[in-house]
Amino acid sequence: MHSDPSRMCELTTEDSLRRLASVPIGRIVFTHEALPAIRPVNHRVVDGDIVFRCHEGAALLTVVEQVVAYEADQIDAGTHTGWSVIVTGKASLVEDPDDISRYEQVVRPWVDLPMARVIRILPEFVTGFELIDRDR
Amino acid sequence: MHSDPSRMCELTTEDSLRRLASVPIGRIVFTHEALPAIRPVNHRVVDGDIVFRCHEGAALLTVVEQVVAYEADQIDAGTHTGWSVIVTGKASLVEDPDDISRYEQVVRPWVDLPMARVIRILPEFVTGFELIDRDR
Repeated sequence: MHSDPSRMCELTTEDSLRRLASVPIGRIVFTHEALPAIRPVNHRVVDGDIVFRCHEGAALLTVVEQVVAYEADQIDAGTHTGWSVIVTGKASLVEDPDDISRYEQVVRPWVDLPMARVIRILPEFVTGFELIDRDR
Repeated sequence: MHSDPSRMCELTTEDSLRRLASVPIGRIVFTHEALPAIRPVNHRVVDGDIVFRCHEGAALLTVVEQVVAYEADQIDAGTHTGWSVIVTGKASLVEDPDDISRYEQVVRPWVDLPMARVIRILPEFVTGFELIDRDR
C-alpha cells in the first residue's frame, strides 16, 4: 500500500464542476440554530446548478435563501490520491411547477421519505483540488 | 443494480463514534469570513477526541476555539446503503508538547505540506444514521 504524502494541485472551475457532476452524492454545509451543520444528500448538476430534494420539515430546509457550501470528494484512503470540490452559493427553494417536475425526474430519492421539496444551489465560488502521487 | 430508496435508521452515540473511528477521512465544517466552509481532512479518534493536523496559515486554523461540525460517511452509490456520522463540538489547538508528539505519531499527513499544527475536537453532540435496504 502506497501511503507517502501526495501533492496538492488546484483544479480549474470547469474541471471542478465536471467532477462534481460525475458523482451522485455530496454534502451541504449550512448554519442551523447558529451552529455549523452538514448533511449528505444525493444531487444532480442540472444546467450548472446543484439540485437535490428534501422532505418537509427537514432541518435542511433552513438552507433556503442562505449562502451555503456544497462539497463532494473522492479520496482513496490507500493511495492518498483523489479530489475534492467545494461550491459556495445561495440555496433557494424551487417553486415553479415545471422546474420541480423536471428536477424530480433526474434527482431520485435514496431514502424512503416523501421528498416534497426541491432545493437548487447557484454556484458563485467554485474551488477544487486534486491529490496526486508525488512521484507522478 | 439495486436502487430502491433505503430506510433511514438512527445510530446510537456509541455506534456513531465507532464508525467514525473506523475510517481515516472526514470533513470539518466551520465558519470562515462569515461563510459556511468545509475541508476534508484525515483524522484519528484518540481517547474519544477527533484529531487532525493542518499547516500553518491554513484557513482551517480559524476553527480554533470555534464550535465546529465533523462529518464522515460511507454511502454506496449503487445500493444506496451506508452510514453518516456528524459530531459537533469545540475545536482547539493542541499546545502541550507531549500531546503534540503523541498525536503526530498516529495522525500522518496525506499531503506533502509541513503540518505544523494539531487540532482536537471534543465531541459534544453526536448523531448518526444508517441507510438500510428496505427489504432487509
